[in-house]
Order: sequence, then structure tokens, then C-alpha cells
Amino acid sequence: MATTMKQAAVAPLLTDYMDVRAQTERLCQPLATEDYVVQSMDDVSPTKWHLAHTSWFFETFLLKPHLQSYHEFDEAYAFLFNSYYTQAGERHCRAQRGYISRPTVEQVFAYRHHVDTAMADLVERAADDDAVTALLELGLNHEQQHQELLLTDIKHVFSVNPLRPVYSERVSRPSRATGAGEWLSFDGGLVEIGHGGGGFSYDNETPRHRVFLEPFRLASRLVTNGEYLEFMNDGGYVRPELWLSMGWAEVQAQQLSEPFYWEQRDGEWWIFTLSGMRHVDPYEPVCHVSYFEADAFARWKGARLPAEAEWETAAASLQPDAGNFVEDHAYHPLPADGAGRGLQQMFGDVWEWTRSQYSPYPGYRPAAGAIGEYNGKFMCNQFVLRGGSCATPRSHVRATYRNFFPPESTWQFTGLRLANDQ
Amino acid sequence: MATTMKQAAVAPLLTDYMDVRAQTERLCQPLATEDYVVQSMDDVSPTKWHLAHTSWFFETFLLKPHLQSYHEFDEAYAFLFNSYYTQAGERHCRAQRGYISRPTVEQVFAYRHHVDTAMADLVERAADDDAVTALLELGLNHEQQHQELLLTDIKHVFSVNPLRPVYSERVSRPSRATGAGEWLSFDGGLVEIGHGGGGFSYDNETPRHRVFLEPFRLASRLVTNGEYLEFMNDGGYVRPELWLSMGWAEVQAQQLSEPFYWEQRDGEWWIFTLSGMRHVDPYEPVCHVSYFEADAFARWKGARLPAEAEWETAAASLQPDAGNFVEDHAYHPLPADGAGRGLQQMFGDVWEWTRSQYSPYPGYRPAAGAIGEYNGKFMCNQFVLRGGSCATPRSHVRATYRNFFPPESTWQFTGLRLANDQ
Amino acid sequence: MATTMKQAAVAPLLTDYMDVRAQTERLCQPLATEDYVVQSMDDVSPTKWHLAHTSWFFETFLLKPHLQSYHEFDEAYAFLFNSYYTQAGERHCRAQRGYISRPTVEQVFAYRHHVDTAMADLVERAADDDAVTALLELGLNHEQQHQELLLTDIKHVFSVNPLRPVYSERVSRPSRATGAGEWLSFDGGLVEIGHGGGGFSYDNETPRHRVFLEPFRLASRLVTNGEYLEFMNDGGYVRPELWLSMGWAEVQAQQLSEPFYWEQRDGEWWIFTLSGMRHVDPYEPVCHVSYFEADAFARWKGARLPAEAEWETAAASLQPDAGNFVEDHAYHPLPADGAGRGLQQMFGDVWEWTRSQYSPYPGYRPAAGAIGEYNGKFMCNQFVLRGGSCATPRSHVRATYRNFFPPESTWQFTGLRLANDQ
Amino acid sequence: MATTMKQAAVAPLLTDYMDVRAQTERLCQPLATEDYVVQSMDDVSPTKWHLAHTSWFFETFLLKPHLQSYHEFDEAYAFLFNSYYTQAGERHCRAQRGYISRPTVEQVFAYRHHVDTAMADLVERAADDDAVTALLELGLNHEQQHQELLLTDIKHVFSVNPLRPVYSERVSRPSRATGAGEWLSFDGGLVEIGHGGGGFSYDNETPRHRVFLEPFRLASRLVTNGEYLEFMNDGGYVRPELWLSMGWAEVQAQQLSEPFYWEQRDGEWWIFTLSGMRHVDPYEPVCHVSYFEADAFARWKGARLPAEAEWETAAASLQPDAGNFVEDHAYHPLPADGAGRGLQQMFGDVWEWTRSQYSPYPGYRPAAGAIGEYNGKFMCNQFVLRGGSCATPRSHVRATYRNFFPPESTWQFTGLRLANDQ
Repeated sequence: MATTMKQAAVAPLLTDYMDVRAQTERLCQPLATEDYVVQSMDDVSPTKWHLAHTSWFFETFLLKPHLQSYHEFDEAYAFLFNSYYTQAGERHCRAQRGYISRPTVEQVFAYRHHVDTAMADLVERAADDDAVTALLELGLNHEQQHQELLLTDIKHVFSVNPLRPVYSERVSRPSRATGAGEWLSFDGGLVEIGHGGGGFSYDNETPRHRVFLEPFRLASRLVTNGEYLEFMNDGGYVRPELWLSMGWAEVQAQQLSEPFYWEQRDGEWWIFTLSGMRHVDPYEPVCHVSYFEADAFARWKGARLPAEAEWETAAASLQPDAGNFVEDHAYHPLPADGAGRGLQQMFGDVWEWTRSQYSPYPGYRPAAGAIGEYNGKFMCNQFVLRGGSCATPRSHVRATYRNFFPPESTWQFTGLRLANDQ
Repeated sequence: MATTMKQAAVAPLLTDYMDVRAQTERLCQPLATEDYVVQSMDDVSPTKWHLAHTSWFFETFLLKPHLQSYHEFDEAYAFLFNSYYTQAGERHCRAQRGYISRPTVEQVFAYRHHVDTAMADLVERAADDDAVTALLELGLNHEQQHQELLLTDIKHVFSVNPLRPVYSERVSRPSRATGAGEWLSFDGGLVEIGHGGGGFSYDNETPRHRVFLEPFRLASRLVTNGEYLEFMNDGGYVRPELWLSMGWAEVQAQQLSEPFYWEQRDGEWWIFTLSGMRHVDPYEPVCHVSYFEADAFARWKGARLPAEAEWETAAASLQPDAGNFVEDHAYHPLPADGAGRGLQQMFGDVWEWTRSQYSPYPGYRPAAGAIGEYNGKFMCNQFVLRGGSCATPRSHVRATYRNFFPPESTWQFTGLRLANDQ
Repeated sequence: MATTMKQAAVAPLLTDYMDVRAQTERLCQPLATEDYVVQSMDDVSPTKWHLAHTSWFFETFLLKPHLQSYHEFDEAYAFLFNSYYTQAGERHCRAQRGYISRPTVEQVFAYRHHVDTAMADLVERAADDDAVTALLELGLNHEQQHQELLLTDIKHVFSVNPLRPVYSERVSRPSRATGAGEWLSFDGGLVEIGHGGGGFSYDNETPRHRVFLEPFRLASRLVTNGEYLEFMNDGGYVRPELWLSMGWAEVQAQQLSEPFYWEQRDGEWWIFTLSGMRHVDPYEPVCHVSYFEADAFARWKGARLPAEAEWETAAASLQPDAGNFVEDHAYHPLPADGAGRGLQQMFGDVWEWTRSQYSPYPGYRPAAGAIGEYNGKFMCNQFVLRGGSCATPRSHVRATYRNFFPPESTWQFTGLRLANDQ
Repeated sequence: MATTMKQAAVAPLLTDYMDVRAQTERLCQPLATEDYVVQSMDDVSPTKWHLAHTSWFFETFLLKPHLQSYHEFDEAYAFLFNSYYTQAGERHCRAQRGYISRPTVEQVFAYRHHVDTAMADLVERAADDDAVTALLELGLNHEQQHQELLLTDIKHVFSVNPLRPVYSERVSRPSRATGAGEWLSFDGGLVEIGHGGGGFSYDNETPRHRVFLEPFRLASRLVTNGEYLEFMNDGGYVRPELWLSMGWAEVQAQQLSEPFYWEQRDGEWWIFTLSGMRHVDPYEPVCHVSYFEADAFARWKGARLPAEAEWETAAASLQPDAGNFVEDHAYHPLPADGAGRGLQQMFGDVWEWTRSQYSPYPGYRPAAGAIGEYNGKFMCNQFVLRGGSCATPRSHVRATYRNFFPPESTWQFTGLRLANDQ
């Protein structure tokens, strides 16, 4: 997905399509039928729903408008598997996706394959149609996003089960002691950020535009569990002066005293992972922290979170595919290489909270129609995250990529890197 | 189950056990694996949970205390499948039974069969042990209650699915026009109610005791859909003077205007059943009404609901096994026979709301220990229902049987019969 | 109020009216203007509202229909000061009574006096009209009920204020050590309960009817704080087997560990009263306990709560005006006299929870029209209390009087007396 | 307040203090005692609370640390009247400010005067102390903010009262027809915004810093009721594509179909004002709209809201004291002058929503200690508003002033001005 599809021949287009679709199904292999059904909180969708919704996307935005011969698999699915596209019709209530036992998993896979067959037909017929290839590219990036969600959601589903099922046995790796890291300086000035063409991007990354930055510093690596434990041991969760007002309210209402997925047993800290329960490793990046926790930690450190323009400027010259991504089968962030130099862990491992609230770039125009609902309508009460995670497909991210979640979210692989003024 | 098991030989005891256990599994045959997982509201439990919990009951109250050689199938199950017995240890949160994908359905069936094997062993060893046979009898009655819940719960699960799955195709029956019914008079006086021994009963049916009744009348049959439609058409849902205060609050908060499972399409009334959507049949008993609706209907008719002592007195001489029960495969109440005489539909079809709030009989003593939590601790803010329903096993009810639900409940097969003073 | 008003001459009727109305205003004397405005929880009404609503009752049910010359004080008041009479028109939302600063207290008193003037006129004209005198009697009993509510509500308003204002300085009394009490036996049998005419009663006390009672015992006095402390110290609030299921849910949800208005300071128990904070007196009746607490205490004692018919039968021969009532200015229950014999504290001190859920008596008929909403529509999910409290007007109660509250209520002066089977 | 107090002589400092304090009390003159007590929703504080809290601010941050001879008026007030300063100790729950009848209004005024006397003493002693004069200036600006809140809160209190009390009779003004307005162009480029010293500012206005702006346009006047009615009539509230996702959720959850304080009577639109109910005037600025409504309106118009840097750049050369402020006694926004040229209504009338989420400026440092909680901890899920309103004191605003509210807020005088790219 790293290159644009325009003017591509049929074969590579179809290969891309088949690759992405197959990867989705590959991620499901460890699951029992029952696992596909459960919605363990409102933010989570059942695996079954992800499988169907990504197919619905191709059906709705490509097959129905562009393939005359297409016949719907089941007309009720348009209602069941629309997520939030108000212009694409009525939807089933998001909070009730786990109340739906039918279609069965088998029927959902049949639906996928029905769509795949028709898509193969469409790609052959419309490989020269720029509108179609642009939508196809969007659909594949959309499916990659749901691959990540599928993993983070099944992690949550397993976590609420007292039996604590294992998604994937842990791959043994040589242990790695991460060093203290260092501050790296950047000049700032009048810089350009945003996507400037050449390859796929979401509309929220455009237009490329100028921003003025004061000189700033970035930490060379992510904040670790060990550092976060120091924060906890220094009263991090009982000192309101470290927190945003909403963050402190959350700490009190939820009685928070450690990151999500952590639990204390006999005085030791454990963490739930896709490979089951493990001791907290002090060298691993801290993960599943909210914006509030990231912000409070930074304040405690006398530092701050980076602005998204700072992050992007620093990342612009790095290779986005070097990092710990889903294809590495760790399904968990890994310690930084103690011997590494310069900026480490910018891509992969954990999504990095920035201090930037998610807003339109100057001159931003969402696409017309239902597709325009993809990004723009969420520009409110969310913060931007950068860099991808251990659950992100390697080909999916880039320096200009803007992810976004509400500040209280913790079920994604979210962590932080410190920044500061010079 | 209609006769007591005391002093029974091994063979019939085991036959009873195997029959009841097999019937539970038979009720699951129409289900897909995915159907077993879903909890569509707090009151509903997943099928999988019913299958496991009924086994947990035998394991906890019979096998663990009485079969020395017994080994637990999985020690985590004691936490997962305890319902509400606080004296039997901590429990998984009721509202989150649908968040649990594991154990899988296959594992749950393996658990059942593990318990069944051990139970066969126990029955052989302890057939003369009165304490064991009494608990066995309780366990089988408990399982029969869950058979009914399994059906009412799966009905709800299917109902919230826009695809509206069918549990069982409808069996065609000759149409039946129910007549106007008649008022039947009863003398009252100092009567005895409650269970007096001779066969199984729950503790809440005891002790048998004297009650003074004024003379009263009972309707010869259940209230029908046609009669209920008259109530609706006469403004039943917009006239507060017909309702209890809490009932009217419920009407307004839920914007109620018809019974649960009814819906209007193009001016016609349809009803969701275990055989899918059907036209409302005016001769069928109205069903899935709350106590509030039953009470409001009776008030509108210038009548009232029967007291439980009135109902029991009238039912005492009838055969409890004559009626429309789960073994009749209707899974829905049936019209009264227009040619019938005397009291009709007292047993089966629908549970009949009484005006009696669920209270202990004079001299009531719950059993000691966790088993004592079976009934007594629910004697608050519930109303008594009598007679069983189309989802009840035929051998399960009797004239003294006291079922109970909160007044707002509608997902059980609940209807009403009118009563009045003379 | 202890005798019926039928055929009474004008003068005594008017005297009764003026006495009751003056007593309401007398109860307000300790209040600052600001105190009249506050609604500290949904169950509480502002003092101002009580003053206006009781006047609205006379205006709506007496003056408008029966005094042709009557002019409304302010037509908006009919909306503002109707409590729950759906047949008397739309109402202001109950939970928002504290959002209303106008009419001012002064205007509300002017409204009262406007109504009083008109009532004097009406009484003179219609002293022979039985319908009018019956409604007048009802209106005065209604106002007496609101006198009690006014006190319990202002107690709650003061209690949530960290300044803990004092309503009335405590009157010093000789200290009194209450003895162990004794069990008193009653024969039961076929008895009559309910109001049989001769003086005023609410409709829910009628008709007088026969009930069969097994022999029973009643404790000679109320349960004391000292006894309740033993229950607490014996793990009363951490042993689920002592509680109804709903009660235990309440204990956990509210994290209950002592009665309402109790608080622990430096290891000692204090209680908030209308005379401010005081040490808990072990000889005083325990007060402000819910039905759940009363029931759990009784179970812990190996006893139970009385049925209302038992209580009424035992109380039938006692003088209802002998007791600690509002006129005694204690505004708090008092210890039983250690030297007393027979049944003590049956009237006054605290309302006694019975095990009887609030249901219609056989043959009960509510009055026609809006007045019929007074009692009947609340016969659901409430328990009957008997005997009156230290906040009840002395002339207001009688042996047949049925008060009722939901089982979780604690802001009334509610306590308990033990009962048992023989 | 428009000039800094540093090095000022005692007399003018004290005069400023007395002026601001007197103005607060002047705003209370139309109120009855009861009006001071009510909290009509969580966002609203009782008038009494505003009067006390502003005094608490001087007591806590000036008198206690800086005036040795100071004696607290009542030590309980520190708990009752702290708003959100966690570093200044425990606080009374915000949502329960309306549950507190004491201290009475009279006592609160006595508290104010106690503080005023001590402040006069302090000002005399410490007029040369820069720390004290800076805090004094902050305290007076703080009190001015509460003057505005006092008015917006009492407006809400009156609005929920069916009697709809009037705060101030409307001053008759010549009617004014507002013209179509025009688009004014601005060059953008690398500009400076933020407060650069010279007079008081809040910490959130600092530091002055560079921002790059694309060329932009601003509407010459505010959006009017007439324009907003066109939006409503064109389906503004039923077209999800016009709304942010959270905004649309709000529209559906609250069933919104018009701005707050509007209501339709017999087909005509009315609006609740501090002068009571009035017909909606099509030439007045639309007011009490949420960010969601402002944003949806702009989208419908093919425009957008201004960024705060755009607004500030355009406003920098204007006089901030020319506008409709609280001293003009309109208590409501006024129509733009049809004959006006250039930017109109930038200051006063209504707070203008910007598209900018409330974030720290680059290099922002909150003050140390509890005073640092004034602004910084709210930088999350709020949007910036600019320009002041008809309820703002004239001397209080300036071009750099940043107000902020959550996007769903409507009880402030909030409106909008359109912007667009060039």
C-alpha cells in the first residue's frame, strides 16, 4: 500500500487487494467461533463485525455504484454493517453489535468471499478508472485500520474473561536493556507539514501547509514501564496538580492507580498481553495509557508531549517501515535497542500521544458524499497520535499519518515520547 | 418429576436425571454456536451459561460435598457459573455473561458430560441417602426452570436481531375461535393453601396454612389479544388513571403503547414468536405483558387480578399436566377451546399475574446454607405468577407453585386472567 | 382530627382548620428564608413547596368546585403545586422543585392566607354539605402528613450542609436506661382488621375484613441503637446471608455500613438530629433504617418483622395518642421507659416497618376521580409501616393507619419492633 | 482594569477594588433572597455562591498569606467556597451548591464586607508589593468573570421557572435593520499573537508568539437570528452531513431543533431573555448556540469558523471597549448598525466560537501553586471563544483574551461570525 495505485495494471492491484484481505483472515486463525461474537465494551466491535464491515465498505462504495452486475449478498447487511456513515443509510446501534448472533461466522466468511469474487471482476473491468482505484486504495487502507482494531478489540475481549485466553504464544526474544535515552534538538522555524501527494493519504493529512515552530527537543526513545513505575511510586495517581482537570476527574471516578491491563499480584506488577499474563518488563515502552496519563507523566517529568507538527518534522526523514509492526508477531511493544542512536521507535511499537487536539489543517476539504465522513466529522474532543503500533500493518503508516482518539482511551496500543522547549 | 424420589431405586432416579439433562440439550438443537454466546439484556443469560450453571449446581451442591472421588472439571468455573449464591463464593458479574467467549460451547458440553458421569456414580452410591435424593430432586427442578429461561432468553436474543431468526418452524394447527368466556364463582371462607407434602415442592410453597377468603369470581379463560386490542384502542396507554403510579412512569419512560414483542407494520399488528414474525391472532392469550399492563387492563375492565390464594383454591382440583407445555412444541400460547367448559387454561400457555406481592407464608423457613438462598431472599418487590407457560416442562408445575417476577418484567410468557369480588 | 366532622357545627370545623393550618406555619418558625427553597434529593420537597401544595389541595378539591365566588390566587400555581394527581392536570417535574425560586416565601404565605380566607367562607356556607366536610377532613389529614414531611425534609436539607444547622435546640430530659424488653404472646385466629367507620380514615384502611393469623409474639419495645450496634459489630453489613437480595445489592452499591445520619468520628458514633450532631444513645430506638436493614437485623436476631395484621391486632386496644409525637418537641425518638409494662412505643417515636408489602385490602375501592389517586396507585413495591413517629401530629394516627414507603427509604423516622412465631 | 496596577498609588488600587466589588453587588439588586439559592443545573452556581467564592479568592490568595492580622470569617467557608483549586484543599461538591441554604444571603454579604475591610487594610500596607498587586489584579479580573457568570446563571435559573421572572425590564431602543454584511480580506503570513505585556492578562494569553496564517476572510458582522432561521428552515437540524459526529449525537440525544432559550408558540418563535419572553428579532445576533450549532451553520453556508489567530489578528487594531457590554444594560446582543463599515461587533454582544480547540501556546507556563490551576488544567475538550458579550464588563476583554467552553455549552451568550479561506 505504500505506493499509489493510479495507472497500475490489473494484476498488482488485485494482488494488493487479495493480500490485504487474506491478512485479515489470517489474523482470525487463533480464534474460536465464540470469540467472533463478543463485544466487551461499547468501543469494541466483535471480530465478526469487523470482517463484515470491511466487506460492506467495498460493497457500498465500489460494487454497488461501479459494478452493474453486482447482486447484494443479503440486503439486511447494509443496515447491520454500516458503522457511522449517515449518508449511507440507517445503521444498527453500535453498542448492540454483541447482541447479534446471526449471521454466523461461516455466513460472514461467505459474504467476504462473495465480495472478493465481485471485486476481482470490478478490478479487471475498471483498472483504468481513477475513481475506482482511488476508492479501492481507500478501502484497503480502511481494512488495514480494522486489522489493527480487530487485534485491539480481541485483546479487550480476552482481558475481561477470567480465563484470560491467549491469542498467540509469546515468541522468545533476547532480553534487551534499554538505556537512559537522550534529548535531541530541532531548530523549528517555518516548516511544511501534511501530505503533499505521491502515494496514498487520508484527507485529514492534507493539504500540505506551513507552520511556524519554536526550537524544540524530542526524547530519543519512548517512555518505559520502568519510568512510569517511578511516576506511580512518586504519587503520580494521587497528586491532582499533575493532571488536567478532566484527567483528575477520570482518576477519581475510575479509581485509577495504574495503566490499563496492569494488575498487582502479591506485590508484583503483571500485565495482560495477547500472549497472556506477564510480569511488567521495565524496559518495554509503557502502553495502554490515556492522554491524561501521558500528559500527567510528562508534567511530572518537567517535560511535555510533542505537538504533532514537531513530531512530523522530526520523523520526516525516517523510514516508516522500520519498526515493530504486526508482521513481527510480537503483538506487544518491544524495548528500545540500548545501542541505538538518534530517534528510535518513531514508527511501530505504540501510537504516540501528541499535545495536539485533532483539528482540520488550514484549507482542509473533506471528500464529497458519505466518504467525506471518514475523518472530518470527528474533529472534536480527540487528540492526535502518531507513528503506528505493534498492531499496525507495516505498509500502513507514514510520517504524515494522523491517528486520533478521545483523551480517555486506553484500549489501543498507546504510549508516549517526551518533548520539551529548548 | 411429579412424584417424590424418596426411597426410589437407583434406576428410576438416574432415568429422571438423564431425561431432564437430555431435554436441556434437546432444546439447544436448533441453535448455531454463535447463538449460545449472546446476552441481549441484563435479565437474559447466554445459552452457554444456562448449560454450565445447571451443571455447576449439581457439582457444587451434590458432587463436591457428597462424592469423595469427584475432581472438578475446571476450578475457574465455580466463579464463572455461580448465579447468585453468595454463600457459595464470589461470582462473575451477571451483566457481563455475554462478554465471555470461553469456555467454548464444546467445552461446556464436555463439562456437562463430566458432571453427568460423576452424577451417575453418585446416584448409584447414594440412592438411599435422603439428603442426596432431596438435593437431586431440587437440582432437576432447578434445571427445568433453566430450560424455560433458556427458551425465553433465546427468544429475546433472536428478537433484537434485525434478521429475526426462527427457533422452530410453526406447527400448523386448526384455527380456533375462542368464545366470550364466563365468570365462575367461588365461595371463599377459611381455606388452606400451600404445599402439604407428598411430592416435591420448593420451600416457598410451604408451610400449608389457613387463609380467609371473601367470595370471589374468576374468568373461565385467559384474556386474549383481541380483548387487549380493545383496551389499546380505548386509550389504554394514554390514560394515567388506569395505571399504578410506577406503571404509568414506566409507560412514559419507555414510551409504551403495546405489549412487548408486538410491532405495527402498515397498520397491522405483528408479533415476534419463536417461530418468527406472525400476525397477532385475536383469539390467542395476550402474552409478554407486565404486571403493570395486566393490572391496568383489569382496572379498565372493572375487574382485578386474582389473589394467589384465590387462584390456588380454584386450581386445587384440576390436573396440572393438562395444558399447553413445552413438550407440545407450540412455544407460544394457544387459543382457548371455544367449546370448553369450566376453568380453562389454568396450567400452561402463560404464567398468570396475581395481585399478590411475593411474601413468605406464615411460618416459612428457608433451608439452611446456600440452598436457602434459592427463594427466600427475593421476597421483595416481586409479584407472584401461577400456572406455568408454553415454555414450562409439563411435569414441573402444580397448583401450589409460586413463580415470581418484578412487575415490569415482560420477557417471560406472562399473561392474565380476570378476577372480581362477588 | 380524632373525631369525624360530619354534622359538626361551623365553629369547631373552622377551628380544626385554623389549628392545623397554624401548626404548619409554626413548624416553619425556625427557618431562614433560604431554607424554604432547597430540595436536597428527589424525595425531598422544599418547605415552600409543602406550604403551597397543601393550599393547592384545598383550592383544587374544595374551593374551585364548591365556592363559586372563588378566584385563583395565581393560575400558574395549579401547574407548580400539583404533586401527583394526573387527573388534576399537568404538573411541574418533581425532581426540579428546588430549581424554583419564585414565588417567594412571602408570596407563598400570601397564597396560604388567600386560601384560608376563602376556606373560612366555604366552611360557613357548606358546613352541612357532607361532601365538603369529608373533603375538608381529608385536606386536613393531608396537611398533617405534609407537616411530618416538612420536618423530615428539612432534616435532610440541613444534613447535607457541612455547617449542620440546628432546627431546634435539644430539650434536656432525664436520662433513661431501657431494659431488655420481653416477648408478648398473641393468640391469632380469625381476626378483623381495617377501619370500620367512626371517625376519619384513609381509603386504604378499608374495608374492615377478616384475616386468619397464626399465634405470634411481639417484642414489648422498639429495637435500640445499642442492639443495632451489636448487629453492626457482629458483621451485620458484611454478611450477605442476612440480607434480602435487593438489600444486599443496596449495601454494596451504596457501601453501607451504618444507619443513615450516623457517622463515626474518632472511633465514636454520632448521629445527626434536628437538634444537631449528638452521640448515639444506646437506649434510643434505632431510627432511619431501611426495610432492608430492619429485615436483616431481625434475621440476625432469629426473629422477623411483624405482619401488619399482627401489629394492628396487638395495637387495637391501645391509646394512639400516648406516645412521643411532634407536639412533644423532641423531634427524635426517645428511650423506652425501663419500668414500663406491656406493649410500649407502639405509637409515636418511629414508624415501624412491617413485613407486609403494601396491597389493597379485599374489597378495597379507591374514591372516584383525582382523590382516588391518593393511595391506591402506590400499591406496588412498598412496605407498610405502622404507628407514627416523633414527627407525626398526635391526632393523626390510629391502630388501622397504613403508612408505606419503598424498602430502601431511610429519610423518614423509621425503625422496627421484632416479632416471631410462637 | 485596562491598565496595570504596578507602582500604582494606594488610592487608585483601592478604588478599582471597591468599584469591582460594588458592581457585583449592584448586579444582585433585582434579586429576591430566594433567587440567590438555586442551582438549576450543574454548570450553574447559585448567586450566593458567586458572592462568597469571589470573596474566598481574596481571602485565600491575598489575606491569609499576606495580611498577618487577618482572621477568617468562618473556617467552614474554605471548604464551601473553593471552586476547583485542588491545591487549596478539599471542596464541596460542585453539583450540590444548590443544596446549601446556609450561610444565608445576609451572612454572605457580611462575609464580603469582612473581606473588604481587610482588603482595604492590605492594600494600604502592601501597595508596593508587586506580588500582592498582581494577585489583586487577578482577583478583580476573577470577580469580573463571576459577574458575567452570575448573570448567565441567574438567566438560566429564571428560565426553568414556569413563571419566567424578569431580571431587568427591557430598555426601549430604536429598531435597527441589519444589512447583509460583507466579506473582509486579510493577508495572513507570519503574524504574532498572544499578550506581550503592558497591562493585565491571564497566563493562557502568553507568551506572545509567531503563527503562520494563510490569507483569510472574515464576515463584517455576527450571524443573525434571521440567517439562523434560514438554516433551520433548510433542515439544519435534520441533516447529519452538516454536523460533527458528536454534534449530531447531541442533536439526537437532546432532540434539538432550535437554539437554547428559543421556543415556538402558535407557529411563532420566542426567546427567553433577562427581560422575559420576546419575539425573536431577525436582526439580532443569534445567541446561546453551541459550538456544534455554530460549526453546522457555517458548513451549511459553505464557510467555516475563524481560527483564534485569525480573529485576534483582525481584532488587534480595534478598540475593545467599543461594543455592547454589561454596562449598557441591554443584557442581550443588539443588531449590527446597518450603516456600519468594516468589522462590526467584534467586542461585546456575544462570545464568538472559534474553530480552535483550547491548547497551550508554545512556551506556555502556568503560574506556580494553586493559582496555576486557573487556566492550564482545562486545556482539553474545550473550544476558544473571543470578544466578550453583552454580559461582560467593558474593561474586562481585549484582543488577546481567550475564553473557553466545552462544545456543547449553550447557557453563555455565545454566537458566531463566519470566516473562510480566500
